[in-house]
Amino acid sequence: MMEEIKVEKVDKRKARPADGELSFGRTFTDHMFTMEYDENKGWHDPKVVPYQPLELDPAAACCHYGQTTFEGLKAYRSNNGALLFRPEKNAERFNNTNRRMCIPEMDPEFFVQAIKEAVRVDQDWIPAKEGTSLYIRPFILANEVYLGLKPSSHYKFVIIMSPVAAYYPQGIKPTRIYVETEYVRAVRGGTGSAKTGGNYAGSLKAQSSAADKGYDEVLWLDGVEREYVEEVGAMNVFFKIDGKIVTPELGGSVLPGITRDSVITMLEDWDYDVEVRKISIEDIAQAYKDGRLEEAFGTGTAAIISPIGELNYNGLKMEINDFETGEVASKLYKTLTGIQTGKVDDPYNWTEEIPLD
Amino acid sequence: MMEEIKVEKVDKRKARPADGELSFGRTFTDHMFTMEYDENKGWHDPKVVPYQPLELDPAAACCHYGQTTFEGLKAYRSNNGALLFRPEKNAERFNNTNRRMCIPEMDPEFFVQAIKEAVRVDQDWIPAKEGTSLYIRPFILANEVYLGLKPSSHYKFVIIMSPVAAYYPQGIKPTRIYVETEYVRAVRGGTGSAKTGGNYAGSLKAQSSAADKGYDEVLWLDGVEREYVEEVGAMNVFFKIDGKIVTPELGGSVLPGITRDSVITMLEDWDYDVEVRKISIEDIAQAYKDGRLEEAFGTGTAAIISPIGELNYNGLKMEINDFETGEVASKLYKTLTGIQTGKVDDPYNWTEEIPLD
Repeated sequence: MMEEIKVEKVDKRKARPADGELSFGRTFTDHMFTMEYDENKGWHDPKVVPYQPLELDPAAACCHYGQTTFEGLKAYRSNNGALLFRPEKNAERFNNTNRRMCIPEMDPEFFVQAIKEAVRVDQDWIPAKEGTSLYIRPFILANEVYLGLKPSSHYKFVIIMSPVAAYYPQGIKPTRIYVETEYVRAVRGGTGSAKTGGNYAGSLKAQSSAADKGYDEVLWLDGVEREYVEEVGAMNVFFKIDGKIVTPELGGSVLPGITRDSVITMLEDWDYDVEVRKISIEDIAQAYKDGRLEEAFGTGTAAIISPIGELNYNGLKMEINDFETGEVASKLYKTLTGIQTGKVDDPYNWTEEIPLD
Repeated sequence: MMEEIKVEKVDKRKARPADGELSFGRTFTDHMFTMEYDENKGWHDPKVVPYQPLELDPAAACCHYGQTTFEGLKAYRSNNGALLFRPEKNAERFNNTNRRMCIPEMDPEFFVQAIKEAVRVDQDWIPAKEGTSLYIRPFILANEVYLGLKPSSHYKFVIIMSPVAAYYPQGIKPTRIYVETEYVRAVRGGTGSAKTGGNYAGSLKAQSSAADKGYDEVLWLDGVEREYVEEVGAMNVFFKIDGKIVTPELGGSVLPGITRDSVITMLEDWDYDVEVRKISIEDIAQAYKDGRLEEAFGTGTAAIISPIGELNYNGLKMEINDFETGEVASKLYKTLTGIQTGKVDDPYNWTEEIPLD
């Protein structure tokens, strides 16, 4: 159905950092995957080529009007090869973003096949140390050479890969979160549920301002009432109140996280009451005052589970679970990373193996 | 204060299209201006070089997280050289955007000097035919090679230039506008008042959907109540109701247009009552029904003045001024383009001359 993926290998491989010297997103593998789109040919010319700079005309649409999509997932080294975690969900979200951004969709099976082929070629780059992984970043840039504002007629699809350190080298650890009441990340009718650059660019100011106050991230409130909890940093957010688990409904302005979806499934499987609904920050504050706020944590591809140790809402500093990682966060983290790395049984068939040479 | 601008000229100039064959934003001049930023040196290495592709590492921040700024202005050929229109206002807005997007500011005088030097080098490219101009596009791309989400530590500033046709080859002409009630462009607390890619990417879907219905552009309503008028397409919007001119207040989600500001000044100077305030779409519809909606038009750098001939709000098709360009729109267009091209006296000192060789 799709063209064969050509492979052009590097003459000389780069030096690979030792597993113990990895960080996040600074080192890239020897190769990258690229594919082009134009209105006549559709997506075409898929290939794995040496990692190299993109040549963009300075009038390319993406340099001006932000018409871009990205995704993020990880490959873990397993006993027999490499494991991907629910890559078909990335493909689905990728196309949802593409539709919102007027970018042509891609065959979801081919999207996954492209990822697998890129990982296969650079398989030596998948680190083996506990907690490490190969971070995979597929993205699309609109590159028609035109300054008029319209959906581009040309696009470039690229997959780059970066071996990354364990997110928690000293074990999972709570963060301090500032509830943002001035800046807004997204609003219904906008692009909040799409994985596109503009949402992230718009979040930098609040993040910087929280960092200046000594906080790790912000908790975003909705853009309409500025009352309902949406996301934490670039992650989805969960609360444990009175033994129940509560997480914001998606509602068009929240990113549909794959970790979020997996966590909901696991919690329901573990017989927790999971409520997916609007949650006001005032209710969180009240639950805290009443001693009913038992846990809070973020979920995302990078950290998997990120416990929240403090929430600062207009000066009310809510310390949660004595700034310790809670029981639910702990169990989710252990089980989910276990499934992702193939060390724990995968009853959901979430992982997909890439056979390596 | 700033470094001297180096100039490296092309060996062989490109063929220039004839003034009568120009369009918008597809043809670019022989040269471009570039400058780099890093945390140690600040903005440095300003130069005019041959127009050429940008080499971006595929992990450059702008390819993923949309941390970008742009501006737009025009140079018109005049009797003694070229005229810029209020470039210091572009410099001011550029820095406002930069602050919102966590991008380092630039000395506003140097910003204008860079534009003048770029135009001077490519002065042969300024077309002469009535209504034509040299469109100037300054922009910044974040280009730190890092997949972590944070303000970049490296940036590239670029100015490209494109000779453009008259916006109205057959004279100023009304457009059909669809009032958008599903998609939202911006919300207070967001990035709506910044000239950054994400706002424009987010607008494509509504624009495409309006085009499918046979409309030229959308009228955006506010993101909170979805009731108050914000912008039309990528322009500011004005209404004439009962002889008074009404335009939306900026309020954080509306782009502070330089044409908008100039139009307000001129209208007040002409003794119109100008009200800068919230305007609900229901009030517009009521004024239409009562026969009090006399004119409507957009303002922006590309079209200068764009009369609105029809507004479709939930099926109510409001034909305005019999689909003819109104008196106010007409007079504004004539006067403003006259000032910009040096053909009409400039009582506001808005134009700035670039002496040419």
